[in-house]
Amino acid sequence: MTRDRILDQTVNRLCDAPSFRLMVNRLAYDKPMPSVDALASLVDLLRSVLFPGYFGDSHVSAESQRYAVGSALNRAAHLLTEQVERGYCFVCTHQDRGACEECRTRAQEVTLAFLERLPEVRDLLALDVEAAFDGDPAAKNHGEVIFCYPSIRALTNHRIAHELYKLGVDVIPRIIGEMAHAVTGIDIHPGARIGRRFFIDHGTGTVIGETTIIGDNVRIYQGVTLGAKSFPKDEKDRLVKGLPRHPIVEDDVIIYSNATVLGRVTIGKGAVVGGNTWITTDVPAGARISQPPRENVQQVV
Amino acid sequence: MTRDRILDQTVNRLCDAPSFRLMVNRLAYDKPMPSVDALASLVDLLRSVLFPGYFGDSHVSAESQRYAVGSALNRAAHLLTEQVERGYCFVCTHQDRGACEECRTRAQEVTLAFLERLPEVRDLLALDVEAAFDGDPAAKNHGEVIFCYPSIRALTNHRIAHELYKLGVDVIPRIIGEMAHAVTGIDIHPGARIGRRFFIDHGTGTVIGETTIIGDNVRIYQGVTLGAKSFPKDEKDRLVKGLPRHPIVEDDVIIYSNATVLGRVTIGKGAVVGGNTWITTDVPAGARISQPPRENVQQVV
Amino acid sequence: MTRDRILDQTVNRLCDAPSFRLMVNRLAYDKPMPSVDALASLVDLLRSVLFPGYFGDSHVSAESQRYAVGSALNRAAHLLTEQVERGYCFVCTHQDRGACEECRTRAQEVTLAFLERLPEVRDLLALDVEAAFDGDPAAKNHGEVIFCYPSIRALTNHRIAHELYKLGVDVIPRIIGEMAHAVTGIDIHPGARIGRRFFIDHGTGTVIGETTIIGDNVRIYQGVTLGAKSFPKDEKDRLVKGLPRHPIVEDDVIIYSNATVLGRVTIGKGAVVGGNTWITTDVPAGARISQPPRENVQQVV
Amino acid sequence: MTRDRILDQTVNRLCDAPSFRLMVNRLAYDKPMPSVDALASLVDLLRSVLFPGYFGDSHVSAESQRYAVGSALNRAAHLLTEQVERGYCFVCTHQDRGACEECRTRAQEVTLAFLERLPEVRDLLALDVEAAFDGDPAAKNHGEVIFCYPSIRALTNHRIAHELYKLGVDVIPRIIGEMAHAVTGIDIHPGARIGRRFFIDHGTGTVIGETTIIGDNVRIYQGVTLGAKSFPKDEKDRLVKGLPRHPIVEDDVIIYSNATVLGRVTIGKGAVVGGNTWITTDVPAGARISQPPRENVQQVV
Amino acid sequence: MTRDRILDQTVNRLCDAPSFRLMVNRLAYDKPMPSVDALASLVDLLRSVLFPGYFGDSHVSAESQRYAVGSALNRAAHLLTEQVERGYCFVCTHQDRGACEECRTRAQEVTLAFLERLPEVRDLLALDVEAAFDGDPAAKNHGEVIFCYPSIRALTNHRIAHELYKLGVDVIPRIIGEMAHAVTGIDIHPGARIGRRFFIDHGTGTVIGETTIIGDNVRIYQGVTLGAKSFPKDEKDRLVKGLPRHPIVEDDVIIYSNATVLGRVTIGKGAVVGGNTWITTDVPAGARISQPPRENVQQVV
Amino acid sequence: MTRDRILDQTVNRLCDAPSFRLMVNRLAYDKPMPSVDALASLVDLLRSVLFPGYFGDSHVSAESQRYAVGSALNRAAHLLTEQVERGYCFVCTHQDRGACEECRTRAQEVTLAFLERLPEVRDLLALDVEAAFDGDPAAKNHGEVIFCYPSIRALTNHRIAHELYKLGVDVIPRIIGEMAHAVTGIDIHPGARIGRRFFIDHGTGTVIGETTIIGDNVRIYQGVTLGAKSFPKDEKDRLVKGLPRHPIVEDDVIIYSNATVLGRVTIGKGAVVGGNTWITTDVPAGARISQPPRENVQQVV
Repeated sequence: MTRDRILDQTVNRLCDAPSFRLMVNRLAYDKPMPSVDALASLVDLLRSVLFPGYFGDSHVSAESQRYAVGSALNRAAHLLTEQVERGYCFVCTHQDRGACEECRTRAQEVTLAFLERLPEVRDLLALDVEAAFDGDPAAKNHGEVIFCYPSIRALTNHRIAHELYKLGVDVIPRIIGEMAHAVTGIDIHPGARIGRRFFIDHGTGTVIGETTIIGDNVRIYQGVTLGAKSFPKDEKDRLVKGLPRHPIVEDDVIIYSNATVLGRVTIGKGAVVGGNTWITTDVPAGARISQPPRENVQQVV
Repeated sequence: MTRDRILDQTVNRLCDAPSFRLMVNRLAYDKPMPSVDALASLVDLLRSVLFPGYFGDSHVSAESQRYAVGSALNRAAHLLTEQVERGYCFVCTHQDRGACEECRTRAQEVTLAFLERLPEVRDLLALDVEAAFDGDPAAKNHGEVIFCYPSIRALTNHRIAHELYKLGVDVIPRIIGEMAHAVTGIDIHPGARIGRRFFIDHGTGTVIGETTIIGDNVRIYQGVTLGAKSFPKDEKDRLVKGLPRHPIVEDDVIIYSNATVLGRVTIGKGAVVGGNTWITTDVPAGARISQPPRENVQQVV
Repeated sequence: MTRDRILDQTVNRLCDAPSFRLMVNRLAYDKPMPSVDALASLVDLLRSVLFPGYFGDSHVSAESQRYAVGSALNRAAHLLTEQVERGYCFVCTHQDRGACEECRTRAQEVTLAFLERLPEVRDLLALDVEAAFDGDPAAKNHGEVIFCYPSIRALTNHRIAHELYKLGVDVIPRIIGEMAHAVTGIDIHPGARIGRRFFIDHGTGTVIGETTIIGDNVRIYQGVTLGAKSFPKDEKDRLVKGLPRHPIVEDDVIIYSNATVLGRVTIGKGAVVGGNTWITTDVPAGARISQPPRENVQQVV
Repeated sequence: MTRDRILDQTVNRLCDAPSFRLMVNRLAYDKPMPSVDALASLVDLLRSVLFPGYFGDSHVSAESQRYAVGSALNRAAHLLTEQVERGYCFVCTHQDRGACEECRTRAQEVTLAFLERLPEVRDLLALDVEAAFDGDPAAKNHGEVIFCYPSIRALTNHRIAHELYKLGVDVIPRIIGEMAHAVTGIDIHPGARIGRRFFIDHGTGTVIGETTIIGDNVRIYQGVTLGAKSFPKDEKDRLVKGLPRHPIVEDDVIIYSNATVLGRVTIGKGAVVGGNTWITTDVPAGARISQPPRENVQQVV
Repeated sequence: MTRDRILDQTVNRLCDAPSFRLMVNRLAYDKPMPSVDALASLVDLLRSVLFPGYFGDSHVSAESQRYAVGSALNRAAHLLTEQVERGYCFVCTHQDRGACEECRTRAQEVTLAFLERLPEVRDLLALDVEAAFDGDPAAKNHGEVIFCYPSIRALTNHRIAHELYKLGVDVIPRIIGEMAHAVTGIDIHPGARIGRRFFIDHGTGTVIGETTIIGDNVRIYQGVTLGAKSFPKDEKDRLVKGLPRHPIVEDDVIIYSNATVLGRVTIGKGAVVGGNTWITTDVPAGARISQPPRENVQQVV
Repeated sequence: MTRDRILDQTVNRLCDAPSFRLMVNRLAYDKPMPSVDALASLVDLLRSVLFPGYFGDSHVSAESQRYAVGSALNRAAHLLTEQVERGYCFVCTHQDRGACEECRTRAQEVTLAFLERLPEVRDLLALDVEAAFDGDPAAKNHGEVIFCYPSIRALTNHRIAHELYKLGVDVIPRIIGEMAHAVTGIDIHPGARIGRRFFIDHGTGTVIGETTIIGDNVRIYQGVTLGAKSFPKDEKDRLVKGLPRHPIVEDDVIIYSNATVLGRVTIGKGAVVGGNTWITTDVPAGARISQPPRENVQQVV
């Protein structure tokens, strides 16, 4: 069989299989889908707004900052409106283009509400920068923290995504969160509520689930999981979505690397959780938890 | 010494050192090497073929899908032929260009065989999407899974790379696998055999070795290692390559975060392995394995 | 309130808040800041110099290699001078442009010193390639290691960044290190001293702190942490920076996945540290350390 | 005065001057303007549709052509709809976003009508290619004509723009025409009506005005102007727009380089007009017109 | 001879030939040369400043305009300073880097002076837009003129380049002028002095020499040359540079296509010069000049 | 009819029409066509080789020049081989891929022969730069000529394309020539033979035909045509290709703007041809030719 015939046949099989249509039933309505590239541009613009000079144009002075911030913000706002609209349309049940005026109107309102929240986001991030500087002896200055620390990169995306999540935006917040995950290895669900002065050191492999609640002044390390323990199912044997199922971490807690905390347990104020531990019950305030002692053995592997 | 002299001297040292030639002995034959950029484009094209509308052009309707798929597939096929040929030439012993007709012919055959397998790859990925949706209460719809889940990104690359691996392609499958590793932190060797409905939640730090065999309906978490325990050496003290040395994971197994399973052990059907465990022997079907209980200590670090 | 009013108001708030100025006090002096994009280009050029044909132009023969290397190195040297100057200016206290002649002169000197060190860097990397090939049964040839192994990617950036760190360059080495972290999940501080023939298998989640010292012939796995245990503070309750606080790992040590070693402890020559262990005290030479045995329990999560 | 003050002042003056607002009164309504970059992409896509393999993807076979054409056309159609809508909005008087549904609906209708005309456009261009091949002894084959001849480039844009012009599209056709002018130096107004088998040799400096009518089988050279002679004004001393004011060129006419024909004159069937002539009255069918003879003089300049 | 030997030999010959060094004697000093790409970016930024919404970001409202203009202008100013410095260094005789502080200081001053002139440039261009609209019955609105008319593109570059020329900038103004020439076919030397409300219709092939002086309200067509007649040489037989040698065109003159006017002649106020004429002497005010009548001949070519 | 139906129908008509297949009969053989983008890169590389520092990397010193030149030349040689092969395949009659080994072998030979000619090309261009500097009072230095003069841009492409033309390369030389035409408005056929020290001032609209022969020290202006007068046809009424049909221009000739010289006529040594003239017969050596005097008329247009 010739190359062209095989190509043709493959296209036919790829375009007709029912299993495929299951995934892409949106195709029937000819509405554009959210664009991962556009969302990446959006986040880049917002990063240049939140940290002018560090990201985006590297020639920004105190005076010209207004222009850089305003220009980037204006473009970001247009991008956001369009992508949020696409996010709504991705899950809406309006069958014709006209009915999606509603999606568009909501997208415009969300954009304005998001703009108004942005200064608070910036203030929270400033505290996160301080927390990283104060928490890591290797940090030489605040600028190094902003340039390099995965914690700041991940929290920038998270605090943006969390605002959109609270505003009821569909699909988009998760994509923004996942972008930071790909770069930092820190996986924070946009629904997680995180307090002030939060610091994740190194961060690769850290996971923070959707219904997690974290207080102020918390520090965690790479590989820490704040996850769910069990997934209740309904009578049709389908997962019940949206139940509180992740930990509550109170103020001033430290959790060391590769510790795993599962379920709606509470890590009490000021507790310290040692590395490589497996926690599925509450930890009292002020407790100090550690793995049992290691052994010296003949054969490791 | 002037800048230009130092530059010159550095170039001389970089181009003459024997240790350098050791690594790059291919240079003698003046054949182009595999291009990581071209392979990245290849994978992007295949992703747009497997998930039209999600990746690539975001304006795809049910009708126009045929064109998008066919056009991308045609370009992907040309790229693949060229890169597979380069992959063969990278390790072949033909000294002159002419003799590499053999590499070219094999590359063309491999491309056609790969095209014919692609619909099956797509069907497997559709089941993986379902598995992720069914396995994570945070997943709002199938689209979110396709857009955001590292598991799907990693398995897309893996299922492509695994087909090429089975077809005997050199070097290329490993590069494709490593691309997903860089983005997701999930490191699956192209040789690993993975069944239907597989889901890796979060995924950062997960490692699946070359001779691993995974059944259907398996779920594993971030930081799980399915690795090798010992590396037998031959009489010349060189590693014996290609021996079965990674775990067999049977159907319906769950392995929690940061568990490490090493060697040709079997995790029996339906077993559940707790997080942060260290497993180097068989686990019986249906077993529930966990770390010993933690202690409350005075001093954590 | 109209969109334009909200935009305006947001810009005002973003540009006036004192918390913001705290982070970006550099803006007053109108000096360009280090550019992450330029540093990414720099590293790409150096990678094409260290591994010609693999990265950069894929058409390089033994003869034309001189031109490719010389051309890339010349551009890299210009980029480096400019970025190192910006790095110095980022923390210097010179208030006017003129005084920064000193920063420029130092940047030019550093560039030349770095060029002279580059062949040694290449030789070290060649040994790292060999170590990876010898240490992984899945490695088919040296070329595959260079193309795909995160260990080589991370060590390329580290060995470059470490030279700059030793030359007293500000900010830049950390950014270069973080670039490899983002791609590989391997987080090595530029200050860490690493011996010959080092290999990190898989690597995601591995952390190596600023004052770590690693001997020759060491192999570690994904998720291993060589971290700090405690952070002494001065009388003003601020972290004391620069103290030795990370482990010393002697020659021929192997540390398996997700092991955590904290503080200025010594892992003695030839020791083997099992996975998922938590080590905060010295390990004698030749010791074999492992987690206590797991339990078979009723309920895992 | 400092740099920042001057920058600020300049921005103020640029944003407040009334003369500026005159030009950009559109700004009040916050509708996106036509994008020259998007239109350039549109034309590139249409060129790849009209001449597959020559432009766009260079790997197109007879079978895979359908996919390349369909995919490019689908993207072109989406781009066209959006830009035509912007073109309408650019001149519409609807003050609010909602009312522009009318612009959007018209844009969608125009796109469909344009799609249906495209095969005729392609057939006309095929004849233009033949005319160029038959009219130039230097042409080696049809492919060279398609790749290189400015005449084909200019007529591709013109025949596209003319269809849009006939469909009543605002602003866009002129931008498309000007794109070809910038590349070829051939300036054809989208309103000009041009018959079959038209050939402009070399073409730089050729001008064809809005109300020009050209028959079949006409050949003209570089620097030929088919222009307007006088511009009647209305009682308010403003130009009357839209009057027929450019030449009619009948079948089989040849006009040599740098000839200028002005006003609603007719160049009769089969006439030959010599170079560097200045024509403002009718030329009879079959006439042969030339400049008066040159002189041999003492001093040229 | 092998390919590599020939390559090597060619490089040697290209790098050693004396004729080559003649052209590139700048190479000895290792100063960066002006970058055509950077100047293209500069002009794009300035065009987006002078015509916001038309070029650059197409989402600009009356309010957000300040930010777009300020941000683009800030970046343009930095680019301009660097390129002007390189322009000075390109011809300066300072042999060491330090002495070029003078070039840098002048570049900074020139940038500020240029910024202050920019609003006037914009006002002149606004009048040029009006002149085009009033002078062409095919123009539908001011926006079309800004988007499409080569006259506006050429005058934008010219009015920018002319300001730099007056400020004594080396090399740069000519490159900026040539950029517009490449796109429009209109070749205006930056030294030419051009009055208000100037319009070049179609424009391809129009040439305006260095010492030309053009009054207000002048309209010229494609292919018109305002050139030099003779080039006086000095005693060493070298051209005397800088003498007035191009025409003076007074107010309200019209010059039709392909007319050539050479030398320091004056076209008097309100004169009309017909197409394809050759003028080397003064034309009185109000005169109407034309080619002698054409002939009807047997044989044209 | 829906959008998707119309799209589908249009694709069908575009892919089935016989007139279309006429143009693209190459599609049957599935060989890649020449790529205009690749040729543009080729010319950019060669320009950076011929004028290092001016084009390509702007940081080139006397020492590092070797690297820049060698690296660019190596890449150019690979690009050239591939495109020349495609050019041959574009017109070859080999039906299967294998037979095209001949095209590949010829392409490799041509590349080597071209490399050997390149230093002569550079020497000729150096003389062209001198001719421009000596011939234009506005030229401030040689560098300005290299950066800005369309004459140099056009001659760079021409002298490259002419070497390939002499080596018997198909299609490619014409595409390279047309690239310069698009930028400069100067249209030189690659077959034209041009002597030393040639200068085209301004250049827009200049045309030089395939069989033109130009001596040393010739200067011509914008809009000059050296064209063909008549196109003899064979007994089948098809153009006879390849006959000498363009002018011979002897040493030291000057031809002013918009002069048209047609047919195999000779412009004798040292002749001066005035602007806007129409020449179809020989001009004796030393002659001074001009248009007849203009008239002062009542009505110009």
